[in-house]
Amino acid sequence: MRAVDLIQKKRNGGVLTKDELTFLIEGYSKGEIPDYQLSAWAMAVYFQGMNAEETAHLTMAMAVSGDQVDLSPIHGIKVDKHSTGGVGDKTSLIIGPLVASCGVPVAKMSGRGLGHTGGTIDKMEAMEGFRTELTRDEFIAQVNDIGLAIIGQSGNMTPADKKLYALRDVTATVESIPLIASSVMSKKIAAGADAIVLDVKTGSGAFMKTLEDSEKLAQAMVEIGTEVGRKTAALISDMDQPLGYGIGNALEVQEAIDTLHGRGPEDLTALCIALSSHMVVLGGQANSLEEAETMLRVKLESGAALAKFKAFVEAQGGNPAVADDPSLLPQAPLVLEVKSTQDGYVQAIQAEELGLAAMLLGAGRATKESVIDFAVGVTMKRKVGDKVSEGDTLATLHVREENATTREVTERVRGAYSFSSEPVKPSPLLLSVVTENGVKRF
Amino acid sequence: MRAVDLIQKKRNGGVLTKDELTFLIEGYSKGEIPDYQLSAWAMAVYFQGMNAEETAHLTMAMAVSGDQVDLSPIHGIKVDKHSTGGVGDKTSLIIGPLVASCGVPVAKMSGRGLGHTGGTIDKMEAMEGFRTELTRDEFIAQVNDIGLAIIGQSGNMTPADKKLYALRDVTATVESIPLIASSVMSKKIAAGADAIVLDVKTGSGAFMKTLEDSEKLAQAMVEIGTEVGRKTAALISDMDQPLGYGIGNALEVQEAIDTLHGRGPEDLTALCIALSSHMVVLGGQANSLEEAETMLRVKLESGAALAKFKAFVEAQGGNPAVADDPSLLPQAPLVLEVKSTQDGYVQAIQAEELGLAAMLLGAGRATKESVIDFAVGVTMKRKVGDKVSEGDTLATLHVREENATTREVTERVRGAYSFSSEPVKPSPLLLSVVTENGVKRF
Repeated sequence: MRAVDLIQKKRNGGVLTKDELTFLIEGYSKGEIPDYQLSAWAMAVYFQGMNAEETAHLTMAMAVSGDQVDLSPIHGIKVDKHSTGGVGDKTSLIIGPLVASCGVPVAKMSGRGLGHTGGTIDKMEAMEGFRTELTRDEFIAQVNDIGLAIIGQSGNMTPADKKLYALRDVTATVESIPLIASSVMSKKIAAGADAIVLDVKTGSGAFMKTLEDSEKLAQAMVEIGTEVGRKTAALISDMDQPLGYGIGNALEVQEAIDTLHGRGPEDLTALCIALSSHMVVLGGQANSLEEAETMLRVKLESGAALAKFKAFVEAQGGNPAVADDPSLLPQAPLVLEVKSTQDGYVQAIQAEELGLAAMLLGAGRATKESVIDFAVGVTMKRKVGDKVSEGDTLATLHVREENATTREVTERVRGAYSFSSEPVKPSPLLLSVVTENGVKRF
Repeated sequence: MRAVDLIQKKRNGGVLTKDELTFLIEGYSKGEIPDYQLSAWAMAVYFQGMNAEETAHLTMAMAVSGDQVDLSPIHGIKVDKHSTGGVGDKTSLIIGPLVASCGVPVAKMSGRGLGHTGGTIDKMEAMEGFRTELTRDEFIAQVNDIGLAIIGQSGNMTPADKKLYALRDVTATVESIPLIASSVMSKKIAAGADAIVLDVKTGSGAFMKTLEDSEKLAQAMVEIGTEVGRKTAALISDMDQPLGYGIGNALEVQEAIDTLHGRGPEDLTALCIALSSHMVVLGGQANSLEEAETMLRVKLESGAALAKFKAFVEAQGGNPAVADDPSLLPQAPLVLEVKSTQDGYVQAIQAEELGLAAMLLGAGRATKESVIDFAVGVTMKRKVGDKVSEGDTLATLHVREENATTREVTERVRGAYSFSSEPVKPSPLLLSVVTENGVKRF
């Protein structure tokens, strides 16, 4: 078998077999097939696409390219969740305890933030003493004990995906649905998931700009799951603005805690309930989404979800009292106001801009080596649809001191807001759901 | 400027500017832009194409990537010729003296053979003492003196094209008309041509299988010529079989001499006259193709073309007596016959197979390091349309000894012939001509 023949086959619209894709990915992973052949192949895939079976073979070839997590010692159906979004996304901190409180084991590996996107691991470390590195045995034991553990990725997982992703990034081959779908799914499969719920963002602030494209991506991922025996469901939600109000590590933990108390932002709560419902159904703890939702609302109202959060924080070395006293979280000494310079109705808030603003304040990493300040960040005070008058506070900045950076960030946050002179009706949050039964729009 | 943005622009169907293509090719040539970006770009070009202006910019960027030959000290319009064919193609040895005898200066750089294709430089070296390396001053002086010199490529010409071609070869991006056209034209332009005549082969034995594709390639090359101020014409000829009868260095020189004597094979003579006519018109020595053709036939019949050949051989150190006594050329001691095992009419002769057969006998190079045996080769005794009975000689092998290789080659040559039980009418040799005025089919 020669790589050049496989590139040509794909270029000519052919379908690569399991053996051919394994040859390509294994060879690439081992350095036997060079970057310049994989980039040509990726460009051919960009134009010719891949069918569901092919995409599944590619996914599995990448999933097995490095370490794989064996979650079989954990009882029950392990359901993982993945979000294609990023800015202000604190759903994992809420969904983990919520789903675990319904009896679905959550054994999750999460990432750190880079650039304008945050990472669950960084957010959890905003809680003093919280350990995001557990041994495999501790990890398994904790999930079997309290039903929930979230740790950072360790070892050498999906190296083929990492290498291919870095290559696609510099060869204009990122925007290919089968390549995106296989990248996401390979990581979830290597992490040991039995079933997967996907949180796919759409809109101007998301990677997929149109609902149609987002649905295609979701379908591609659901099809991979079906092909490889991992039940998968995807919820498509709007991203005309960041989720909730807070962006920044401690700010987001606080908002997650608020939500577990039942007093979280409406959009964040709704999305967490919707994603959790699918997880509970796929995890076999409810027979229908309606039943799951009722169960979840009870867990929120009864305090069971919050209790699970406390147990989780305590098990991983943090102080569970943080759940009742947010002042135990790192606090920035100074809060600056970003005021509107115009009247109008908020039409959209650019998530990426707010993510970059929070990063510039120190909440995120410009490079992998950057050190994070857990206390700083941005809190939105106005969201889409809100009426704003000149001088009203659009957002607050949580900072260490006022300086050139805070002045730049103030402008950036102000610029992230766009206004309409006519009243704006926020678009519905949940747009459609994709399962192996097809696409259903709300 | 970033390479990834240019790849994306092309991927999305955009048109790259001169500056952008120069950035890409210069950067690649210098090793500042890696192979993996150029291969992704080449694949994007495969799918999205390039317009005439873009292709011309690419051509010039490659033409100036290394040494360029300055032919300005040579008086007159320097017209170069290029063939996309290969097997049995001895046209340069005929056209050079023929065109020079009409007053068009021919200052030509040719290549060596590799694989199944031969090279003019190797063929000329079959004449004892013939020097294919001249200094620049010798080269210029000889053309000004006798009107003709043919030497091997020296120095570092079009390194960007060489690098890109090698990359395309292993990334399934060879078959792109703008990339093929710019590769050919960049070499001719770097070699100093004022005008260019292209010999484009079509048919099962050629790179371009259909007349339509061959015309598209020819148009792309003519358009480049027009864009960069080098008048270009292309003749498209059939390649259902190799040209003439001989394949192998000395055998081809002999056939070239026969043709200059006016007793060459009909197809070879016709193609040489046709290509030469365009060269004489572009070289300003005739006002029409008809006038040029009349002039060329006179030069052949009067012996003027043959005299030019003798002067050329003598000037480059060979023995001009070879033109009257072919026995001065290297002769293989043994001639084996390849006999037909069936009755029928010859329908086609696979040129590539015969080229490989000659190479296996020692007439060509399997690798760049192979040493050539000038005497050996294949002579076709039957061509398309000929009636053949079982036991008739299809071809002869000129060899050193009979051995396992000659037996393998016998089978290969026999297999290169295909037969029909019905009479076969050879297709016309010349199919169409492409100039800046458009495509004209014969």
